[in-house]
Amino acid sequence: MREAQVDFAALKIDALLVSAPANVRYLSGFTGSNGMLLVERGGERVFFTDPRYTLQSRSEVAGRIRVVPRGPLLAAAAAWIARRKLRRVGFEAGHLSCSSYVFLDENCGGARLLRTAGIVEQQRMVKDPDEIGKIRASVATCSAAFRRVQGWIRAGRTESEIAAELDYRMRREGAEGPAFETIVASRERTALPHARPTSRTVGHNELVLIDVGSFQDGYASDMTRMLHLGRVPQPVRKLYDAVLEAQLAAIGAVREGVPAENVDRAARNVLKRHGLDRQFTHSTGHGLGLEIHEPPRIGRKDKTRLRAGMTITIEPGVYIENLGGVRIEDTVLVTSTGCEVLTPTPKELVTL
Amino acid sequence: MREAQVDFAALKIDALLVSAPANVRYLSGFTGSNGMLLVERGGERVFFTDPRYTLQSRSEVAGRIRVVPRGPLLAAAAAWIARRKLRRVGFEAGHLSCSSYVFLDENCGGARLLRTAGIVEQQRMVKDPDEIGKIRASVATCSAAFRRVQGWIRAGRTESEIAAELDYRMRREGAEGPAFETIVASRERTALPHARPTSRTVGHNELVLIDVGSFQDGYASDMTRMLHLGRVPQPVRKLYDAVLEAQLAAIGAVREGVPAENVDRAARNVLKRHGLDRQFTHSTGHGLGLEIHEPPRIGRKDKTRLRAGMTITIEPGVYIENLGGVRIEDTVLVTSTGCEVLTPTPKELVTL
Repeated sequence: MREAQVDFAALKIDALLVSAPANVRYLSGFTGSNGMLLVERGGERVFFTDPRYTLQSRSEVAGRIRVVPRGPLLAAAAAWIARRKLRRVGFEAGHLSCSSYVFLDENCGGARLLRTAGIVEQQRMVKDPDEIGKIRASVATCSAAFRRVQGWIRAGRTESEIAAELDYRMRREGAEGPAFETIVASRERTALPHARPTSRTVGHNELVLIDVGSFQDGYASDMTRMLHLGRVPQPVRKLYDAVLEAQLAAIGAVREGVPAENVDRAARNVLKRHGLDRQFTHSTGHGLGLEIHEPPRIGRKDKTRLRAGMTITIEPGVYIENLGGVRIEDTVLVTSTGCEVLTPTPKELVTL
Repeated sequence: MREAQVDFAALKIDALLVSAPANVRYLSGFTGSNGMLLVERGGERVFFTDPRYTLQSRSEVAGRIRVVPRGPLLAAAAAWIARRKLRRVGFEAGHLSCSSYVFLDENCGGARLLRTAGIVEQQRMVKDPDEIGKIRASVATCSAAFRRVQGWIRAGRTESEIAAELDYRMRREGAEGPAFETIVASRERTALPHARPTSRTVGHNELVLIDVGSFQDGYASDMTRMLHLGRVPQPVRKLYDAVLEAQLAAIGAVREGVPAENVDRAARNVLKRHGLDRQFTHSTGHGLGLEIHEPPRIGRKDKTRLRAGMTITIEPGVYIENLGGVRIEDTVLVTSTGCEVLTPTPKELVTL
């Protein structure tokens, strides 16, 4: 259980209804799929779940638990709000559907519902030591799986087979599963930033992009590496070196107090010098934790100042249609003096 | 691409904004993760996506495509609504967050937004031959994986290992991945209907519950089978036989025109005769397709009349705390004369 950092007075609310699964997990410790948390100004907290999770919630959640025998948890939350005569209740506007809102509004005894955004997400940006430990473990799992699979890749394997093998190895290393659909893209498909693995067979003298991450103990890892089957042609080498230079420049720019956009600019400036900035079509990175994509965004115009304890990805990429693409990505931990690259996997272009 | 069955006149709307990912995929054919579809009364359709999916949307989506260079797709949809001067626009209230609603409302040129529920979901309930083919393939993959893993299970393997092996085999058989977190529960953990696999080692003379399904070509399968390591004790055998009898009774009740609740009652009545109905704590089944849980619910009070082409699960279960549970589940296709059990896996209690 974690104390919710909610400024009830400034928000002028008596309670905050937390419905986003990652926020519920963060504050309550509950790892199941159906939970909701109401945090009151006076310190009272009540956790709602369904009977499938009676035993589990008792062992995971501190404080008051309401097991809702049937129907949506929201009905029980609304009844609670009405009974407690709460007058102004904040809710997570990005995580409550319109139909749920209407239901809540009609059943909460006339309480006024107020939209809030990002309260718990802000708190989640800076990870505590327990969380950092879990992210380290998740990163270690992902890299261990990659190391095992790397040596097994050869011409004749399909993208899907390689992805399946990575997912399997992550599970065997302790992950709950992949943090997103594992990307294995070969040849010109490397130019698709979000390529799904296909039944395409990887051939000799081809470039392969692998973007992989795991969820372990609820926490994400994220890494991208490039492999080449056979001797690396000069143009590929040049592309790789430019992206690597950009990635290292971005890592070099990470430090507590630096605005996220500066880190992005560091990568972009390097690629500009190489005439490749227009082919860098996404942001430099993103926060990760209980979700694979969390604030801050390491991109243009994100002025969030980095803080020690944030975990972010650094992943510049360059994509040339019909030719191919290169992306290199690490998970890093922001520190007061710079950052620690958590991903232990070497960053040379692997040749097989 | 599929024609949307929207009664614009009855709903008094000029257009329907489709935002639920499965609904977008169903109507547009788009398999990526970020798409939105606006269907106008006059037949005009416009599909919104981001630049990651420029190439993919061109190959998958028929009709007008708007690639939104930056920012949320909703901003582009709102601008489109304003430009076309649409006056009354339906939206999916269960699939649009309050914050998205507010944004849309403020940026759509004064159009009136109207909540709708379940329009595309209703259409999706009855599968067309292409979809049924994909569900058959998904079911075949799941059963093939199960067959392979079954012979590999023995005392000493952990629940997590077995789950990882199933997921891996499904991938190798052609699945994108599991349709839900694969359940492998042993001994008294079989009494938890939604048990997550743990590092617990499966031992001799223990019951094991495996609930597994895959997504393949976007379509779900779902199956539960029970295994026993060593000779089956009489009480377990009795429990198993009662659940199997209930499952067969429910399958026997499936036919076009029958209300879903009748199928549920068929299973419940059998368990009642065995004095086990109070231990049957969930519904008999659910629809499945592009989502693992879709309408109809095969449960109490669901009066939806079954129609030929619906694909549903039949999965009664009995759970006795601290002792164990039994569930048996098939994916079945409703036909005009009854149903076809798609799951080919034998239903005897497997003894290893």
